[in-house]
Amino acid sequence: MYSFKNDYAEGAHPRILQALSDTNLEQSEGYGCDEHSLAAVQLIKKRLGADADKADVHLLCGGTQTNLTAISAFLRPHEAAIGTNMSHIFVHETGAIEATGHKILTVPTTDGKLYPDGVNAILDMHPNDEHMVKPRLVKISNSTEIGSVYTLKELEDLSRFCREKKLLLYADGARLGSALTAAGNETTLADMRRLTDAFYIGGTKNGALLGEALVIVNDALKEDFRYHIKQKGGLMAKGRILGIQFEELFRDDLFFDLARHANAMAQLIVSSLKKAGYSFLTASPSNQIFPILPNTLIEKLHKNWAFYVWSKIDESHSSVRLVTSWATSAEAVRKFIEEFE
Amino acid sequence: MYSFKNDYAEGAHPRILQALSDTNLEQSEGYGCDEHSLAAVQLIKKRLGADADKADVHLLCGGTQTNLTAISAFLRPHEAAIGTNMSHIFVHETGAIEATGHKILTVPTTDGKLYPDGVNAILDMHPNDEHMVKPRLVKISNSTEIGSVYTLKELEDLSRFCREKKLLLYADGARLGSALTAAGNETTLADMRRLTDAFYIGGTKNGALLGEALVIVNDALKEDFRYHIKQKGGLMAKGRILGIQFEELFRDDLFFDLARHANAMAQLIVSSLKKAGYSFLTASPSNQIFPILPNTLIEKLHKNWAFYVWSKIDESHSSVRLVTSWATSAEAVRKFIEEFE
Amino acid sequence: MYSFKNDYAEGAHPRILQALSDTNLEQSEGYGCDEHSLAAVQLIKKRLGADADKADVHLLCGGTQTNLTAISAFLRPHEAAIGTNMSHIFVHETGAIEATGHKILTVPTTDGKLYPDGVNAILDMHPNDEHMVKPRLVKISNSTEIGSVYTLKELEDLSRFCREKKLLLYADGARLGSALTAAGNETTLADMRRLTDAFYIGGTKNGALLGEALVIVNDALKEDFRYHIKQKGGLMAKGRILGIQFEELFRDDLFFDLARHANAMAQLIVSSLKKAGYSFLTASPSNQIFPILPNTLIEKLHKNWAFYVWSKIDESHSSVRLVTSWATSAEAVRKFIEEFE
Amino acid sequence: MYSFKNDYAEGAHPRILQALSDTNLEQSEGYGCDEHSLAAVQLIKKRLGADADKADVHLLCGGTQTNLTAISAFLRPHEAAIGTNMSHIFVHETGAIEATGHKILTVPTTDGKLYPDGVNAILDMHPNDEHMVKPRLVKISNSTEIGSVYTLKELEDLSRFCREKKLLLYADGARLGSALTAAGNETTLADMRRLTDAFYIGGTKNGALLGEALVIVNDALKEDFRYHIKQKGGLMAKGRILGIQFEELFRDDLFFDLARHANAMAQLIVSSLKKAGYSFLTASPSNQIFPILPNTLIEKLHKNWAFYVWSKIDESHSSVRLVTSWATSAEAVRKFIEEFE
Repeated sequence: MYSFKNDYAEGAHPRILQALSDTNLEQSEGYGCDEHSLAAVQLIKKRLGADADKADVHLLCGGTQTNLTAISAFLRPHEAAIGTNMSHIFVHETGAIEATGHKILTVPTTDGKLYPDGVNAILDMHPNDEHMVKPRLVKISNSTEIGSVYTLKELEDLSRFCREKKLLLYADGARLGSALTAAGNETTLADMRRLTDAFYIGGTKNGALLGEALVIVNDALKEDFRYHIKQKGGLMAKGRILGIQFEELFRDDLFFDLARHANAMAQLIVSSLKKAGYSFLTASPSNQIFPILPNTLIEKLHKNWAFYVWSKIDESHSSVRLVTSWATSAEAVRKFIEEFE
Repeated sequence: MYSFKNDYAEGAHPRILQALSDTNLEQSEGYGCDEHSLAAVQLIKKRLGADADKADVHLLCGGTQTNLTAISAFLRPHEAAIGTNMSHIFVHETGAIEATGHKILTVPTTDGKLYPDGVNAILDMHPNDEHMVKPRLVKISNSTEIGSVYTLKELEDLSRFCREKKLLLYADGARLGSALTAAGNETTLADMRRLTDAFYIGGTKNGALLGEALVIVNDALKEDFRYHIKQKGGLMAKGRILGIQFEELFRDDLFFDLARHANAMAQLIVSSLKKAGYSFLTASPSNQIFPILPNTLIEKLHKNWAFYVWSKIDESHSSVRLVTSWATSAEAVRKFIEEFE
Repeated sequence: MYSFKNDYAEGAHPRILQALSDTNLEQSEGYGCDEHSLAAVQLIKKRLGADADKADVHLLCGGTQTNLTAISAFLRPHEAAIGTNMSHIFVHETGAIEATGHKILTVPTTDGKLYPDGVNAILDMHPNDEHMVKPRLVKISNSTEIGSVYTLKELEDLSRFCREKKLLLYADGARLGSALTAAGNETTLADMRRLTDAFYIGGTKNGALLGEALVIVNDALKEDFRYHIKQKGGLMAKGRILGIQFEELFRDDLFFDLARHANAMAQLIVSSLKKAGYSFLTASPSNQIFPILPNTLIEKLHKNWAFYVWSKIDESHSSVRLVTSWATSAEAVRKFIEEFE
Repeated sequence: MYSFKNDYAEGAHPRILQALSDTNLEQSEGYGCDEHSLAAVQLIKKRLGADADKADVHLLCGGTQTNLTAISAFLRPHEAAIGTNMSHIFVHETGAIEATGHKILTVPTTDGKLYPDGVNAILDMHPNDEHMVKPRLVKISNSTEIGSVYTLKELEDLSRFCREKKLLLYADGARLGSALTAAGNETTLADMRRLTDAFYIGGTKNGALLGEALVIVNDALKEDFRYHIKQKGGLMAKGRILGIQFEELFRDDLFFDLARHANAMAQLIVSSLKKAGYSFLTASPSNQIFPILPNTLIEKLHKNWAFYVWSKIDESHSSVRLVTSWATSAEAVRKFIEEFE
């Protein structure tokens, strides 16, 4: 049984394990003040383009942790976040944002993306009325929860809209590596810095044991941020573990290479499925794909392959979610493809 | 410069790194449902004595995370925790418990411990009056924040008192390994299970990269606990990392051996300091010691040794905190001792 | 300019002002422990039918206050409320429920009501998965936010469904008086007690200066409730003010008489509008009606009458909200009707 | 039995009841946007001296409600309030502040007051360390919980200290009327505006049925404040009730006259007790006094007089709390005094 269930089924890229091993007995400062964490922060900043040194970078230990810490630190009590109705923070984080006191306002989506029009509809419904929450932060995921990737123009449009409307733009980058290395993508980390108020670079789903790097661009959001990390439980005593991993991922192009591999594996499957005549829930150039398959085929595939059924399409068809990762073997993909050739 | 600043200055015990490496390419379920996590839970349960299978064990990624998740899950909104005025949750977690909505009521301490009398004084001040919070959970740390260790009798007395008063007893075990292996200690993990409603076994400060194992004994506190872990950001996608580490720590006596080593190193320093005529802030048989030293000696020591000055004693003396760990080398301790011989 | 904007435009029914005056210099206990509050609670209990003495009744100072205090007291941190997408708690309380940490899951509605099917759809989407909140409390408003009134059968069906699914049923009764005296209504206060876990009887919008009476039926929700009222800021020092008012409202049938008058005034307008050929957003037998009018007529009416435009229907028509109260004069209604005859 | 238990045992001053009655059938806007609320705000601003029009004034429905709404709106999640260990928010509001997520740091007091030295000790313990909360708001009560009144110089010193240290100064004025009319007091409402960032003027304990007027002086704290009032449940639908009452209290000197009467009644008792040789827990020129009496006398007094025993002094003496109000009759005071003459 081989799994395409997710991109966190294996451990870490061997170079990361090696780095942990090589540095193991060094004595270092705790709580992210060690030299590896500081070096990792510098390596990430170098990727952020002009003014990069003005950004703050914090290493946290997971995606939900990062989202809840950032959003609760950025908002005042009466302010709300806006996301799609598929948004991870809205559906799959057990009310973590609401647990910090904030409502999430949702915009329906079919392709996983949030557009200015959808955000504007929310603003129209909240006309400066103290009986309603105040929309303040727009949260996107890139790639999205269903694998789609924002074009650079879409990001620029949304960013411009948010600035006009005095909304913060925050990007959940659990799978940002996959988005930025997807075929046709023009967006860079420097663009993410230029266009958002804050975003995070996901390590957990791209080759690290754990770890996300939060980049805070907007000066107004930076003050005292480490207090929030500590209060919400995300400040690791052995912060070095995060530093060592991100140092390795960004020492050269490892972070991007791993994501590129994951995408390539997924797209091999996409090509093959298209050739075989299958359609998809939405276009995805990234490492999560959602083909629509006959239930009989799904049943057959499940004998040797682990993956999630995503949604019912009609009586005899369902969409499924297939996820590849830095660790997905070309050999496994080849065998999987044979199943429906 | 050698550091006695804390017990999280190094990485992980080599056996743990090896185990992470050996299992690295196994595909496993996410979020703590993998086989290593399940096995680790079983190994821990075996140490809990009779009825051990009735306890729930959850693996979380840090101490503050564990404390805030457990306490907020266990209490209703109007209920408060009780701890000493040195309590980690009161002083050093950036208001993490209050951030989940709960007050901490404090009892002054000089030896770091909480006794029935102190708790009773809090109860006397809160006589079933809806204008005040309702004391509900007693939180201790074993070993304490200043290295002292509860005797078995002290734990039994406090446990009996809590049950009489319908108070929950929760033990922060960030350094439980050190406590349970300290000279003179009679308490076991089975006693901790027998005497508390919940407690955690700290991995981060005893040889793991990260990880704490929360043991929930009281049935009324078990329901839906994984929802709380997820909501507070502590449910790791690669939960296997916690499982693999605790599996290694409890496969044999590694957990206890590491703690015993840390204690031995600290006690070597204690003996030597006593011989040299120095006194201590409080008696500590564990891996944190607080000698009172002349400021001139402290200054001299700081040239080659890193450690924290804890508190001012008088114009010419201060207490300092020295912490040893599984990784502390006997060679370093020997050299350190020479400094004041 | 006469206002049909809401049912809280005037002060209190003269009998209430008289009672406040008559009792003014009595010295009484604070915080709802005075004799008037105790008497009011008994008078309300008498209306609750068999087992009425088993219900707890608390007097609070406003609707949002009551909703947020009750819901946050009833739920554990990971549990969510379910309401319609028009629900007052979802739209018009500035995220008060989320500010206490709880998500609200919504069901789309056109008639303002929540039915078992809609709730069931929410349950289907939340299949005991710790990555999502746990639906736990169903919140309805009777009458609803758009004036419709649940039939007794609808309440019985929803109540039965909730009990089967272990969901709590909580009814916001800001306008319960109007619902229970509406033409065709068969539901009584005793039915509300029998069918819900908790509900409140709104005073503010039915002749009191302020005040809502929360009835807690379910034993499991009663413990320590006054702590929650205090913590959330709703325990009035001069609680007697609430007691005196509810005593007056329930000493005889004043509460119901006032609501009946409000309904009668609204229904006079409904009849007249129907006669004139206008339709309505939804059928409402209560004191809030939502006729669909030509924009030209709305403009004309606004010269002499204050009311809110509710929603755009088409280019030339909008729905408006007209609200009557215990204080609405028959004379004003007569003149208003003449405008479109 | 006559009660000296508190200053909220009676209803409202007759002029207030009359004003409620006179305006009863006026139709007005809801939620504090009515003409009476606007007029009351203007009348209060007139008392605030130069730049008074720059202050924002909000009418809320109770003291705990005002404290929790203001403090949670003013602080970011990691910031803490500082108060005395007798502070109402710390002891007697059921953890209302903590329930909004904020820790209260306490300074021991014997006279009920907070001084720069005490606040400074808290700052010294919190040296910009993200592992601890960040002290940010100093909360005083004037008069204090034990009846003492800050001198103008004490307020000026504390204010200067807070501004130097970038701390917000917030004054709970539940009994501000009593403080400002106490013998020897030099502080005015204009001084309160000049020296604090925000403070409230208590109505409930000085002749109103309910109501507190929050004055926000610091521009940075003003934005969107009404959202917070609504979210926390304090925005009354019939906000006019608060407006009408404060309009009456500040139309002339009624507010101060009522407080002056309360003080005079208390001080009659003080003089008489002093003459009889009794001492006091602390000097109080206000309407709350804390004489130390023999337990035998307390027992005797309790036959005809209701009041609280405050604290045990020694085996045969206790301190008691006697509270007078706008409604305390000179006749009752005369009779009470006779008891110990």
